[in-house]
Amino acid sequence: MKFEAIAVEKIPLIHEGDNLPSIICEKIGLQYRDIIIIASTIVAKAEGEIFRLEDITPGEEALEIAARTGKDPRFIQAVLSKSREVFVETPFMLVTTLAGHTCVNAGIDESNIENGFLLYPPENPDASALKIGKELEKLSGKKLSVIITDTNGRAFKIGQTGVAIGIYNIKPVKRWIGEKDLFGKVLEITEQAIADELAGAANLLMGEGAGGIPVVIIRGLDYYCEGNTSIKESYRPENMDVIKQGLRCLRNKK
Amino acid sequence: MKFEAIAVEKIPLIHEGDNLPSIICEKIGLQYRDIIIIASTIVAKAEGEIFRLEDITPGEEALEIAARTGKDPRFIQAVLSKSREVFVETPFMLVTTLAGHTCVNAGIDESNIENGFLLYPPENPDASALKIGKELEKLSGKKLSVIITDTNGRAFKIGQTGVAIGIYNIKPVKRWIGEKDLFGKVLEITEQAIADELAGAANLLMGEGAGGIPVVIIRGLDYYCEGNTSIKESYRPENMDVIKQGLRCLRNKK
Repeated sequence: MKFEAIAVEKIPLIHEGDNLPSIICEKIGLQYRDIIIIASTIVAKAEGEIFRLEDITPGEEALEIAARTGKDPRFIQAVLSKSREVFVETPFMLVTTLAGHTCVNAGIDESNIENGFLLYPPENPDASALKIGKELEKLSGKKLSVIITDTNGRAFKIGQTGVAIGIYNIKPVKRWIGEKDLFGKVLEITEQAIADELAGAANLLMGEGAGGIPVVIIRGLDYYCEGNTSIKESYRPENMDVIKQGLRCLRNKK
Repeated sequence: MKFEAIAVEKIPLIHEGDNLPSIICEKIGLQYRDIIIIASTIVAKAEGEIFRLEDITPGEEALEIAARTGKDPRFIQAVLSKSREVFVETPFMLVTTLAGHTCVNAGIDESNIENGFLLYPPENPDASALKIGKELEKLSGKKLSVIITDTNGRAFKIGQTGVAIGIYNIKPVKRWIGEKDLFGKVLEITEQAIADELAGAANLLMGEGAGGIPVVIIRGLDYYCEGNTSIKESYRPENMDVIKQGLRCLRNKK
């Protein structure tokens, strides 16, 4: 058993309206069950999610947070506009986005953008993955999966890893239910977060730095799964999220 | 740019005293800069970390937690004996272990063990990785890295991923300091958690289920780094860990 992770080289700088599936297919031949892993920055650029801070007018909540934290209220407003809840204000803003993803700064990216501009994440990454995936399948004639990824920090540790924020034709979590372990003992339900593991694997080639490798193919695994899947299946239900409860506890004390 | 992940097949059931480097080298030829990823269960088995619940005598704290949660006080005592702090008691015990790793049940494993026995994690996974790594280098004549892995849940999402708990000859976090992005803008410090991304990539072959693939080689990357490294470099300093502060806030309210 083995798999390969292949960097798709020489993807050009992406601009609004660019046809990502067409660009990808020019650079690499695709195979059945390939998992095409695409950095959210190029999806967001193609979808025109670029904006300028100077065009943002901060509302009252943004001004209050800015007063408490010393941060740019326009940037805070941009984050709030994409968030449904704020858990931490400083030294970083940890939020749950409208799309249900919990991350810093609502995934707004300041790097790899022409100066003075910032980038919102794709508004609906699952929908973006589906649109790109169907076009890739049409162009290549092969059934395949797509994962759109970002890089996030994590609890209890420093550093960032690649994470999945949108998916097509792959389950975000693989369930091993009722299988027996090596000794015949029936396992309780175990759930393997394969979409995030694939995102992390791809990030080993994408890297955090210059952003020059925004597309990676993972080939040789058998995770293709046709049908309705959503990354939201992997988000912990609010009433079972003790970490969010802890952060709210802290916020209420202040 | 590409890398391969290769499952090392037919590793036999491991028992106390087994020579893991020797067993691994019988099954696969190693190359310079290979990253050998080893599931902590077989390291713990070889190190004799197996124990029986019936040999554990619960102390006062374990009995109190058992009274609150309905769990087996002997299992709780086993977890406490490997922990320096408890953050959550129920529905799962989230602790920081003596080794500094924050995880459920202090990494104690109930699966893939002959019935009636459980398995503590390796006492010092960095030391285990160093010992195994030096022997693998001696047997193969090649400089290489080792990562010992477990599977853990994570904040905000369901499911588990492979994570690094001990390392040899590889940095846990790769720092991109002062590099410029594609537009010449100097990046702030970004830190990529490569050891955990590698652990997750390996887990795509190890899987959560039958545990039949406890060793994976990742080949083709350039992360070899000779010298003193420790997984502890990746653990967030306590005074900067807002999530732990939140969980303590919640615990103090109860």
